[in-house]
Amino acid sequence: MPADLSRLAIHTMTTRPWSLEQCLDGYRRAGVPALTVWRQAIAPLGAERAGALIRRSGLAVAALCRGGFFPAWEAGARAAALADNRRAIDEAAAIGAPMLVLVCGAVPGMALNEARAQIRDGLAAIEPYARANRVRLAIEPLHPLYAADRSAVNTMAQAAALCAELASPWVGIAVDVYHCWWDDRLEAGITAAGSGQTLFGFHLCDWKVETRDPLNDRGLMGEGCIDLRGIRAWMEGAGFAGWHEVEIFSTTHWARDQELYLADIVAAYLARC
Amino acid sequence: MPADLSRLAIHTMTTRPWSLEQCLDGYRRAGVPALTVWRQAIAPLGAERAGALIRRSGLAVAALCRGGFFPAWEAGARAAALADNRRAIDEAAAIGAPMLVLVCGAVPGMALNEARAQIRDGLAAIEPYARANRVRLAIEPLHPLYAADRSAVNTMAQAAALCAELASPWVGIAVDVYHCWWDDRLEAGITAAGSGQTLFGFHLCDWKVETRDPLNDRGLMGEGCIDLRGIRAWMEGAGFAGWHEVEIFSTTHWARDQELYLADIVAAYLARC
Repeated sequence: MPADLSRLAIHTMTTRPWSLEQCLDGYRRAGVPALTVWRQAIAPLGAERAGALIRRSGLAVAALCRGGFFPAWEAGARAAALADNRRAIDEAAAIGAPMLVLVCGAVPGMALNEARAQIRDGLAAIEPYARANRVRLAIEPLHPLYAADRSAVNTMAQAAALCAELASPWVGIAVDVYHCWWDDRLEAGITAAGSGQTLFGFHLCDWKVETRDPLNDRGLMGEGCIDLRGIRAWMEGAGFAGWHEVEIFSTTHWARDQELYLADIVAAYLARC
Repeated sequence: MPADLSRLAIHTMTTRPWSLEQCLDGYRRAGVPALTVWRQAIAPLGAERAGALIRRSGLAVAALCRGGFFPAWEAGARAAALADNRRAIDEAAAIGAPMLVLVCGAVPGMALNEARAQIRDGLAAIEPYARANRVRLAIEPLHPLYAADRSAVNTMAQAAALCAELASPWVGIAVDVYHCWWDDRLEAGITAAGSGQTLFGFHLCDWKVETRDPLNDRGLMGEGCIDLRGIRAWMEGAGFAGWHEVEIFSTTHWARDQELYLADIVAAYLARC
C-alpha cells in the first residue's frame, strides 16, 4: 500500500462537478499534491489564466487530458484533428503539464487496420510539435469495449508497437488499469515498456463486476475486481516512478458531495492500491 | 455474401421467447437448416424428448450451448462444475450435437492467472468424457468486457494456447465476431487455428456502436460496426466449412414478434454476412 499521498494525482474529471478552482482548492486541502487537468476544466478560463491559477495553488500537474482522435473519413477532418492536437500541446505547455494523454480514436465502420494506420500517421505528424514544446505524448490503450468509436488501440502491445514505430523519447504509454487489467500480456507489456523508457502514466480506478454503463460507471478503487496492488507492483518493478493518477468516470459518484467523495478517494488510495 | 441459407444455423437463445418446438417449427418454415440449442431450451423437456423432437424436425444441430464455468474458490464447487459439464456432454450426445460450446468462467476477485489455470485443469478433466461421447469441446473466447465474471479466456491467442496444452482433436475454438472483432491478432489467430484444425464454430451478430447494456444489447448483422464479410473471409480462407451460427442477445429484438424478427435475421444474413 502507498505509505502516503506523495504520489497521488487526481483527474479533474474525477470530480467533474467541480470547477478548476474548486479542484485545486479541494485537492490541496485533502493533501493531494498533484492533478491531471482535463481540457474541459480549463476551457472556461483559457490556458494562460488556468496555468496561473495552477502555479499559484502549488499543485503539480501530472498531465493534460486529452488529445488524439486522429482517424476520420475525410482529409480535412484529419487535418482538423492535428490542429486540435497542436492546440492541446500548447495548452499543456501553458499549464505546465509535462505530457498530453492521447485517446487515439476510431470511426464506426472504418476498418480497424485503416484507423490504426491513420493513428500512426497522426502521431508522426504531431511528434515534432510535441518535442519542440517539450510535451510528452502518452498513448492510452483503451479497453476493447471502446474499439468502435473511441480508440482502435486497445492493448499495451499495440501501444508498444506504435512507440517502436515512432521511436521518439517524446512518445510513450499511459497504463490505465480499467482498460488493461484483463490482458494476459499486461505484465509482460509493462516490463517491456519499462525497459524501453515508455512508461509515462498510470491511471487508477476499478472495474465493477456488474457494470451498468460502459462509459460512466467506473468504480472507486476497491469497488471492483482489479488487482490494483499487483499491477502497481508490476509498474514499480518496471521502474515507473511517476504519479498515481485517479481517473474515475461515475455518474454515481458525481452525484455525491464531492468533498466527501474526495475523502473516500484518498482513503481508498491508501487502503487498496 | 452467402449464396443461400444452406450454412445458416440459429441459436435458440436468439429467439428466446420461443420454446424449442416453436424454434424448430419457425426455423424450418423460414428455410433455416440448423440450430444451436441452449440448455435452457431443452430443460422443460429433458434431453431425450428434445432429441426426438429435433430429429423429427429434420433440422441439423450445430452445437449445444453451453458448458464451462470451471473456476471456483472451493474444490467442491469445481467438482460440481465438472459434473455439470459431463451432464452437458450427455445432453449434447442425446440431441445429436457434435459439440459443446464452453464459456470458460471467471470469479470476481480471483486472480486471472489462477482462473486460467483452473480452466485448463477443468478442460483436461472433461476431455476424456467428451472424447468417449464423441462430443467436441469448443472454447469460446469472450470479450474482455466479461473477464470479471464470465470468462478469463478473452482472446483467440489464449484459446489457442489452451488447445495447444490440451492437444486433443476434441478441443477447439468457437469464434464469435462479437467477442473477437476488435483484436488486432484475430486474422492471424483464425489462420493459425485453421492450420491446427481447431476452428470448430463461428458465431454471428453485430457490435452496436452505442451499446446500452453489456449483456443483452447485441445487434442484428448490419446494426453495428463489425466487418462481418471480412471475418467470414478469414474463416473460409482458414478452411472453416462449418455452420454460420446467429447468436444475438437483445432485449430489443426479444420484445418483437419473433416470426418477423426471424425474417429480418435471414435477410440480414443474406445481405450483410
